[in-house]
Amino acid sequence: MFRLTRRYRFSASHRLHALSLSAEENRRLYGKCNNPFGHGHNYVVEVSARGPADDVTGTAVNPAVLDALVNRQVIAAFDHRDLSSEIERFQDLPATSENVAVEICRRLKTHWGEAFPGAWPKLEKIRIAETDRNIFEVNADEIS
Amino acid sequence: MFRLTRRYRFSASHRLHALSLSAEENRRLYGKCNNPFGHGHNYVVEVSARGPADDVTGTAVNPAVLDALVNRQVIAAFDHRDLSSEIERFQDLPATSENVAVEICRRLKTHWGEAFPGAWPKLEKIRIAETDRNIFEVNADEIS
Amino acid sequence: MFRLTRRYRFSASHRLHALSLSAEENRRLYGKCNNPFGHGHNYVVEVSARGPADDVTGTAVNPAVLDALVNRQVIAAFDHRDLSSEIERFQDLPATSENVAVEICRRLKTHWGEAFPGAWPKLEKIRIAETDRNIFEVNADEIS
Amino acid sequence: MFRLTRRYRFSASHRLHALSLSAEENRRLYGKCNNPFGHGHNYVVEVSARGPADDVTGTAVNPAVLDALVNRQVIAAFDHRDLSSEIERFQDLPATSENVAVEICRRLKTHWGEAFPGAWPKLEKIRIAETDRNIFEVNADEIS
Amino acid sequence: MFRLTRRYRFSASHRLHALSLSAEENRRLYGKCNNPFGHGHNYVVEVSARGPADDVTGTAVNPAVLDALVNRQVIAAFDHRDLSSEIERFQDLPATSENVAVEICRRLKTHWGEAFPGAWPKLEKIRIAETDRNIFEVNADEIS
Amino acid sequence: MFRLTRRYRFSASHRLHALSLSAEENRRLYGKCNNPFGHGHNYVVEVSARGPADDVTGTAVNPAVLDALVNRQVIAAFDHRDLSSEIERFQDLPATSENVAVEICRRLKTHWGEAFPGAWPKLEKIRIAETDRNIFEVNADEIS
Repeated sequence: MFRLTRRYRFSASHRLHALSLSAEENRRLYGKCNNPFGHGHNYVVEVSARGPADDVTGTAVNPAVLDALVNRQVIAAFDHRDLSSEIERFQDLPATSENVAVEICRRLKTHWGEAFPGAWPKLEKIRIAETDRNIFEVNADEIS
Repeated sequence: MFRLTRRYRFSASHRLHALSLSAEENRRLYGKCNNPFGHGHNYVVEVSARGPADDVTGTAVNPAVLDALVNRQVIAAFDHRDLSSEIERFQDLPATSENVAVEICRRLKTHWGEAFPGAWPKLEKIRIAETDRNIFEVNADEIS
Repeated sequence: MFRLTRRYRFSASHRLHALSLSAEENRRLYGKCNNPFGHGHNYVVEVSARGPADDVTGTAVNPAVLDALVNRQVIAAFDHRDLSSEIERFQDLPATSENVAVEICRRLKTHWGEAFPGAWPKLEKIRIAETDRNIFEVNADEIS
Repeated sequence: MFRLTRRYRFSASHRLHALSLSAEENRRLYGKCNNPFGHGHNYVVEVSARGPADDVTGTAVNPAVLDALVNRQVIAAFDHRDLSSEIERFQDLPATSENVAVEICRRLKTHWGEAFPGAWPKLEKIRIAETDRNIFEVNADEIS
Repeated sequence: MFRLTRRYRFSASHRLHALSLSAEENRRLYGKCNNPFGHGHNYVVEVSARGPADDVTGTAVNPAVLDALVNRQVIAAFDHRDLSSEIERFQDLPATSENVAVEICRRLKTHWGEAFPGAWPKLEKIRIAETDRNIFEVNADEIS
Repeated sequence: MFRLTRRYRFSASHRLHALSLSAEENRRLYGKCNNPFGHGHNYVVEVSARGPADDVTGTAVNPAVLDALVNRQVIAAFDHRDLSSEIERFQDLPATSENVAVEICRRLKTHWGEAFPGAWPKLEKIRIAETDRNIFEVNADEIS
């Protein structure tokens, strides 16, 4: 069994703001990330999949197939966008990196079977770095 | 003579849009950077200064003094901001990294003498990386 | 459940020397790390915590709270210090990165409940890189 | 218990080609990695071992012993080589990073006991990055 | 005046061998880089251009135009290739990074005017890193 | 003409303290870098040389010869040392990175002709990074 990790990048803006909290509570909670005009990051996303290597080809995951899936479902939607105003999921949910990681994971899980119809590889985890000091991980099997 | 370079970071959003061009021309020119909702980056700024080392202290630039200057004039103003809507200079000028570099350089030149009242060190250049694949430099003496 | 990792840096010196061994044994065991005058590193510390995201705020760990804890208990004590002579714990214990990782973990565990009084997040692991070629990890629940 | 990870580098060429497939199938499967003249990478290998720290020395793994083992069994054999034509194992097996990771793991497991005759440390995993966007991991206890 | 630098990557193999020298001289001169089966690298190429920013657009170089030029003339030809056997220029010239840098520079200079028909931007320099420890630079105006 | 840059690393400790200043002045000037027990860094040194490529070999600098020179004159003397107490030059001169850069440059210039007896390559500059945020450069021809 192998774990394959591929790294992707996108640049986007966001604003952290919880709809159910007051302006003052949002400021105290999110600090400068609550700035009404937003701010942005170069996000680095690592997608990890797990599976056995094929005896003939010696590969566990076809990288071209994974790239096509991630580019279509995630990068094309998120790159050079404002996550908080342009991604439907973040209309009523703060676009924290935790929530962004879950949304990426959901998108990949939903379409995983089209890209990889066999038993393997399985999507294992999503890791997202907002900056190189601030890193978030979710396991795919904890996401519905 | 030494060159000292110190590296700073800020996260911000921007939207590339030239006021004198049509919507269609802006789209053709800037591509996805013209997205009306903006997008963002983790900017890395390198500030380089030049000067002789002091015989007694063995330093060419007091790093605490330079940090205070850059933090006050640049980082405090730009970090977690939307450059295109919150920085006055970019109200009528596209917030391209070229223009951001010039604006950083102008702010540091304007206040340089307060921080460093002697003949040395001199501000030499500003280098700004929008992503690690896209890097811009200006020489301080070409900026008025 | 999310894992959040935040990265911190400190610069310190140390000397590897086991009190119970002879000078000759120390030299053979630690090589140039036994140099009596010490040597130093730019240490990179990654602190990982685990927990669910709050439904309202969308965050698993308040980063400002974690930063305050790490800065107070670790960075303020270790940065620009000689670990072997200035940190009480390393008076009679060699300041190897294994022992430094355990000491960081203990300090954070001891004060974790003051910073995070609820059930979550939990401190999960400490990772310390002495150089980018030499990396050490401990799990928080193996440290008493 | 600690995990120690040490990072090594080697530069090598390879060509992905499965002997049991037709020329056309190889081209479709491996794309430009099937180029008959080969291509190359700066490989980064991370070797992770696990064990308790010695009470006297405060170290879990003697780094000099691990370096000698990895350099002798892996780096000396792979660095500045063409993996596909010069490493016996890859005469009839494609030199994919999955297979390279397994081969590195086998070589280290075979000779581990000579380097580390005690119960600890144990070899835990091998991680190999072909480029910084393409990373492969195997657990040592899944490799026979 | 600005300097814009954009970073590109390709993976290739090469073998250092001077046709006019004996086998023994080649071995002494190039060491393990003379290995007859070749070896490879992940090359990082930085292309720097210089020019004023356009008053309207605020950009000194159109990055899409530069990317198209570099991809067509350099990356498409060199990526996943064996430089020593597949690039005509290196049939009778060792594919050292010095010579690779010159060849990249020549290819870009020859086609520069098609991509950038105006007076600016000018190609300024090519920097190529074979590994992150081994870096080569040529100035475009020293290359005919 | 080419510029070749090679990157080296060493780990060392130092203490910034000017003998001609009072304890109080030293504290005010150097801040935490004046800590009497010292502190340390992983230093990264870049050595740049300039010269034409040899027509036959296609190389501007023999990297093995440069490595031998730098390792003998700099790395062997500085790695895993306390610069302030073990390097004679820093007995009465603060071991600031400015002074360390000059000392490295002097050592290489003094022995350059033994390693490279011809007209080329010439030593061009020394760049030293104390941390990745703090970088110092000297030109070799400004150092006597």
